[in-house]
Amino acid sequence: MKLKKLILSTLTLFLAINSFSQKGYDLWLQYNKITDAQLQKNYLNKIQGIKILGNSPTLNVSAEEMQTAWKSFFGKELPEKNSGENILVLGKMDQLPQQLQKNLKSDFENINSEGYIIKEVKFEGNNTILITGKSHIGVLYGSFRLLREMQLHNKLSNLDIYDSSKIQKRVLNHWDNLDRTVERGYAGFSIWDWHLLPDLIKPEYTNYARANASIGINGTVLTNVNANSLVLTEEYIKKVKALAEVFRPYGIQVYLTARFSSPIENGGLETADPLNEEVRQWWKDKADQIYAEIPDFGGFLVKANSEGQPGPNNYGRSHVDGANMLAEAVAPHGGIIMWRAFVYSEHDPEDRAKQAYSEFVPFDGEFADNVLLQVKNGAIDFQPREPFHPLFGAMPNTPLMMEFQITQEYLGFATHLVFLPKLFEETLEEDTYVNGENSTVAKVIDGTLSNKKLTGMAGVANIGNERNWTGHPFGQANWYGFGRLAWDPYMDSGDIAEEWLKMTFTNNEEFVEPMKEMMLESRETVVKYMTPLGLHHIMRTGHHYGPGPWVSNLSRPEWNPVYYHKADSAGVGFDRTSSGSNALEQYADPIAEKYSSPETTPEKYLLWFHHLPWDYEMKNGKTLWYNMASKYQEGVEEVEDMTETWNNMEQYVDEERFEKVSMLLQIQLKEAKWWRDACLLYFQQFSNMEMPEFIPEPAHTLEYYKNLKTPYAPGI
Amino acid sequence: MKLKKLILSTLTLFLAINSFSQKGYDLWLQYNKITDAQLQKNYLNKIQGIKILGNSPTLNVSAEEMQTAWKSFFGKELPEKNSGENILVLGKMDQLPQQLQKNLKSDFENINSEGYIIKEVKFEGNNTILITGKSHIGVLYGSFRLLREMQLHNKLSNLDIYDSSKIQKRVLNHWDNLDRTVERGYAGFSIWDWHLLPDLIKPEYTNYARANASIGINGTVLTNVNANSLVLTEEYIKKVKALAEVFRPYGIQVYLTARFSSPIENGGLETADPLNEEVRQWWKDKADQIYAEIPDFGGFLVKANSEGQPGPNNYGRSHVDGANMLAEAVAPHGGIIMWRAFVYSEHDPEDRAKQAYSEFVPFDGEFADNVLLQVKNGAIDFQPREPFHPLFGAMPNTPLMMEFQITQEYLGFATHLVFLPKLFEETLEEDTYVNGENSTVAKVIDGTLSNKKLTGMAGVANIGNERNWTGHPFGQANWYGFGRLAWDPYMDSGDIAEEWLKMTFTNNEEFVEPMKEMMLESRETVVKYMTPLGLHHIMRTGHHYGPGPWVSNLSRPEWNPVYYHKADSAGVGFDRTSSGSNALEQYADPIAEKYSSPETTPEKYLLWFHHLPWDYEMKNGKTLWYNMASKYQEGVEEVEDMTETWNNMEQYVDEERFEKVSMLLQIQLKEAKWWRDACLLYFQQFSNMEMPEFIPEPAHTLEYYKNLKTPYAPGI
Repeated sequence: MKLKKLILSTLTLFLAINSFSQKGYDLWLQYNKITDAQLQKNYLNKIQGIKILGNSPTLNVSAEEMQTAWKSFFGKELPEKNSGENILVLGKMDQLPQQLQKNLKSDFENINSEGYIIKEVKFEGNNTILITGKSHIGVLYGSFRLLREMQLHNKLSNLDIYDSSKIQKRVLNHWDNLDRTVERGYAGFSIWDWHLLPDLIKPEYTNYARANASIGINGTVLTNVNANSLVLTEEYIKKVKALAEVFRPYGIQVYLTARFSSPIENGGLETADPLNEEVRQWWKDKADQIYAEIPDFGGFLVKANSEGQPGPNNYGRSHVDGANMLAEAVAPHGGIIMWRAFVYSEHDPEDRAKQAYSEFVPFDGEFADNVLLQVKNGAIDFQPREPFHPLFGAMPNTPLMMEFQITQEYLGFATHLVFLPKLFEETLEEDTYVNGENSTVAKVIDGTLSNKKLTGMAGVANIGNERNWTGHPFGQANWYGFGRLAWDPYMDSGDIAEEWLKMTFTNNEEFVEPMKEMMLESRETVVKYMTPLGLHHIMRTGHHYGPGPWVSNLSRPEWNPVYYHKADSAGVGFDRTSSGSNALEQYADPIAEKYSSPETTPEKYLLWFHHLPWDYEMKNGKTLWYNMASKYQEGVEEVEDMTETWNNMEQYVDEERFEKVSMLLQIQLKEAKWWRDACLLYFQQFSNMEMPEFIPEPAHTLEYYKNLKTPYAPGI
Repeated sequence: MKLKKLILSTLTLFLAINSFSQKGYDLWLQYNKITDAQLQKNYLNKIQGIKILGNSPTLNVSAEEMQTAWKSFFGKELPEKNSGENILVLGKMDQLPQQLQKNLKSDFENINSEGYIIKEVKFEGNNTILITGKSHIGVLYGSFRLLREMQLHNKLSNLDIYDSSKIQKRVLNHWDNLDRTVERGYAGFSIWDWHLLPDLIKPEYTNYARANASIGINGTVLTNVNANSLVLTEEYIKKVKALAEVFRPYGIQVYLTARFSSPIENGGLETADPLNEEVRQWWKDKADQIYAEIPDFGGFLVKANSEGQPGPNNYGRSHVDGANMLAEAVAPHGGIIMWRAFVYSEHDPEDRAKQAYSEFVPFDGEFADNVLLQVKNGAIDFQPREPFHPLFGAMPNTPLMMEFQITQEYLGFATHLVFLPKLFEETLEEDTYVNGENSTVAKVIDGTLSNKKLTGMAGVANIGNERNWTGHPFGQANWYGFGRLAWDPYMDSGDIAEEWLKMTFTNNEEFVEPMKEMMLESRETVVKYMTPLGLHHIMRTGHHYGPGPWVSNLSRPEWNPVYYHKADSAGVGFDRTSSGSNALEQYADPIAEKYSSPETTPEKYLLWFHHLPWDYEMKNGKTLWYNMASKYQEGVEEVEDMTETWNNMEQYVDEERFEKVSMLLQIQLKEAKWWRDACLLYFQQFSNMEMPEFIPEPAHTLEYYKNLKTPYAPGI
């Protein structure tokens, strides 16, 4: 036994060396060694071989994934077997024996075309775990589900699992430019190495697809919404095709952003007017050309007439004219158009929060069937907290797609630990009241509220070519959580955190419990130290790195923080009631009424909807000023708590990730203090009230904070 | 034994999984498992423990490196032992017992302050392998040397090795910008994550230092020669300091590029005139400020009055005035100035190849003692082939530092397999004849030719944040080879290739022999398919990606390829003899005379020095046109051979690196054909001669090649 011990310890040693820098790269697919003897016995008894029914690239990658996991879980292969007891069988419905198909009839009725069933059945007379679905991609999703069960250390017994996605288009949006810079990217260069495509296929592309398929993401928009028409040229279509071919077995469709002026820039036309016949033909030809190369091309995402991008308004045409023209071009091929509702005009004096609603609601019902209107979660721009966008529920005859931002443009870049599924969940759970109580945003998005067939959720990716994909090790949780919520928008963010922690680090409860709590609180923490009580958009210019409530010199009024907080000696906050911009009128009555008075407005949205005096008395009997200070301070203290929690985790985490998170938390703490000190010093000028005694002496003067310059903050 | 076998195969399996994506990252420090039983026995008998004399960060990293290697070689630790037989002892000279110091007196006389001795000695009465030197860094270099011996599978017996670097400053130049883009970088973003420094210390920084120390590189210029003065601000100095602290134990000094106009941009002065007292004081204060934070700061690298960079000429001052002002600022701290000789003027009608010589030779002897004049290997700009720069040997009273380019700006980016040490070696071996025969460039550089104390060699790095550092797996060999030649400019490039292949892949001769041959031929191959027979600088504009011999529309005449090849119906080539620009006069007589006639000019430099008729008869009796075509064709065919050679290597290489190199070779082949077809079609317009029958029909017309656009080719 001494030999065994020696060799085993040798093995551990090798693992320790070689898996060192791989941990971050392997995301939530660590497939940590199963060391619990009972559990190992259960798994290896229940699954003693694998049998694949039929043949397809997707089945192949399902089987490969099983092998990868087996080698990592158990240090051995999962043998292929043609028959016998306790075999894992993978195959789609129509590959099953007729009798089994009959037996499973009611199970198959429970799932949609992408759904899966994992069930213990008799197969050719033997006890078998069957993974099946109506499509090969269903089988792949089922395979990842089984592996997740094992990663979560759930015993395999009396398996009877089925699940289907509740949303159809589960899509990452990459704001990646063709020069490999990434707008709002904080994890290095773009993973798309355009220059070397289509000839160099990097292993990262496959691993990207694996990771996405494992959480059910089925689409990726490769290019920035601030689009470059070059990607629609023949040369680039070949590059896109190469990526599409890597992604296809994993059920991932590629999409591109379409620059509206492409017919001029690429086609040599004199106009991009959507009602011009030549223009319409150009887009049809372009679609035909793309689909000839990429038969399962997803379609286009379009940012039009927004922040300088060209669009139909340039020709006196409407968003409907623009979207429907493109929809017509891709419709014959089964493609869709994702048309962004993120539109506001520098020439429109109306409250920016109201403009998208004003622009789009009149068009309800006019968009083609294959158009999704892509709406950000809030009406401004991916703030640490926003009320849900008033468009949700306001366009019952138009399928609305949710746009979340996974990359943390306004939430501390890849430096701050913020668990975003908590933010996503908050929006999805909000009640729009448009069809009475329980008309949640989730029901708008999954189509159940007004019976929509086409549904979608987009997440602006936080992925770059950093070795661990997302820069911050915990940024991976936001990618993971987005995928899980796109699959099922009713999921609990706590469950997501727990799954992710176990799959990414360890199942040890001493680690999982405190870390889960920390993750769930982390979003409220960032709100506190950045924009408490409904404050919003007070970040610095351009890069949005750090506090800039004083900024007032930008050319467009609605780009200035002062536009949003409206602090003066009388008070602070944006009056969006009827005495102000009346953005409230865009919400259904129960909300509009409730939020019309500060007393009945949730405190988290207070300054979003109301301009209130500094000495306004809040529910706790303290002034607004006192409460604001108190929130900023709580935010800082909570980050301090996070650093302590993490320090206790050292024994559960590999050194590389432990050290990295430790250092990043120190940066987060430093920056939380920066936010507190800069904002309180700034607002104090207007409140003219004393700093509460619990606020430490600021490290610097307000002038110091105003004069800070960081021209190379990333992601612009 | 069955158990053992099982566990061992399990172990192999784990290794295979976990080391998969790590191979590229680990560079030439793979420390592959020692599987040969005899060899393992030799190593484990000879070294049964380790003992460290004294204590220092550098000794610590030496010991850590031994442990890393031991775990990887043998799957176990190297135990620390205080005494006994067959211990490895690490310690510098003054830590050794007096008697041993005496015994080794003559050995120590063989080495300089960075040198090392590895010798079997009696230590406290026991047989011991001693690694020692006059400094801790010597011990570290010795440790890496011993590990190299083991990676090369050399038996440890009667060890008596000593070595010292022949060049003092062995420096990488990173053309990295503060926004993380890299000028002429083809391996992703900059590895310096400026935004998160000094607070986030990435493991990549340590591994970068390890890799450099293992080949003796002892300095790194962190920033682009096209410099940004922001890096000299307090905020950035803190960031630089953080890197310096990571690098210090590895003996690596940091340097920065100094933008000459910094006193204006950062200091608020009205001038940067080097003779202005305020300016001089500003630089002194700046140096004091930097050295207060980084006591071993290396100094500044300066590109002045070159390609738009500001410099002393802006104030009517000379390069000497500029360099000596900076030299004075850093001298009290032991710093140096590396002043680039890469200077040419758009207003000077003189042959660009002559201008640096004309500018600098008159200043010979006038530079301060701590100034190195940094001269590119050739007089134009890092071409696939250039004659050595005429400055080498022409400034006997000025220490000249060699500047090689490791990144392949003009040699196929990170896509073409080109083993650059062959190019470096060619330059170093050239005879300048300035002190009679055997006055090689190497002797200029290592100071022996004219007794220089300060010596240096710079390499423009090919490193980025790609997972394997350099993009092309074989790009690592160029980084490695540069380091080896900076340590010893007389090394044989074949030996370098062999070392690198064994350390990076495998010692198997079936692999090493053909691959070594392929690497050694690869440089001549790229010359053939890009710029044969002395052609040069005929790449496309800006990015230099692909052939552009037709380009003639750039604002500065000497930026146009037509300036360099001067093709017309009468012939092709740049007449640099007395009938032309007479650049030849800048070389010593034996060269100037020999090269004055095309008959005695080496054919590799023919069109560099001569404008010759298309039907000029060359040594093989064929015309110049025929020979040009034949070279281009040979280049293509040699790349075809490379792909075949590589295909035979599949069994020796992990799948990831094998596939990557295979794909890259296919791109190289495609681009070699592009070069051949575009250049021959272009030159044929002037030669008006038939394409030799061995040239295949070009894939496209000349117009097609002229119209190719690749605006996002990387590295600009």
